[in-house]
Amino acid sequence: MGLFELFKKKNSGGVAKDRLKLLLVSDRANCSPDVMEMIKNDIINVISKYMDIDVEGLDIQITQTQSETSNGTVPALFANIPIKDLKNRSKQ
Amino acid sequence: MGLFELFKKKNSGGVAKDRLKLLLVSDRANCSPDVMEMIKNDIINVISKYMDIDVEGLDIQITQTQSETSNGTVPALFANIPIKDLKNRSKQ
Repeated sequence: MGLFELFKKKNSGGVAKDRLKLLLVSDRANCSPDVMEMIKNDIINVISKYMDIDVEGLDIQITQTQSETSNGTVPALFANIPIKDLKNRSKQ
Repeated sequence: MGLFELFKKKNSGGVAKDRLKLLLVSDRANCSPDVMEMIKNDIINVISKYMDIDVEGLDIQITQTQSETSNGTVPALFANIPIKDLKNRSKQ
């Protein structure tokens, strides 16, 4: 399944939760999966400042996708983050 | 231009730089643009821990996109982040 199909995929089963979807693609082949992993953890921490995240339902994939600028593949991170609620300061 | 076309758009002109592309879509209508703005700033800070960002070339758009779960639109954040270099600890 291509990245964008992954992004558009309907949320399967489970309690209909609000979701935040994150897609991060680096067109740098040597941006290692470890760096993407560290970025992912930091981004989840950022988001949890504003929203209550349902950690069990977190769906995160670090995959490879076709590079736009070269023939190779580049690292891509896709996260589907179920949100239980916004934190007070984030409410409109 | 839809979100994914924006995401796939070739980098126009300027020095060919490595880029990190970020797409963040909330399917929560009341996740205000202010919250997306705050999340954006925090995510840029996270990424700049690992990579030298060319701040001038930063292309960030907070827009609305069709919700998957309702008829309305939901906030979406798209960032095209030119990377000058990885920081030492991120290199493979």
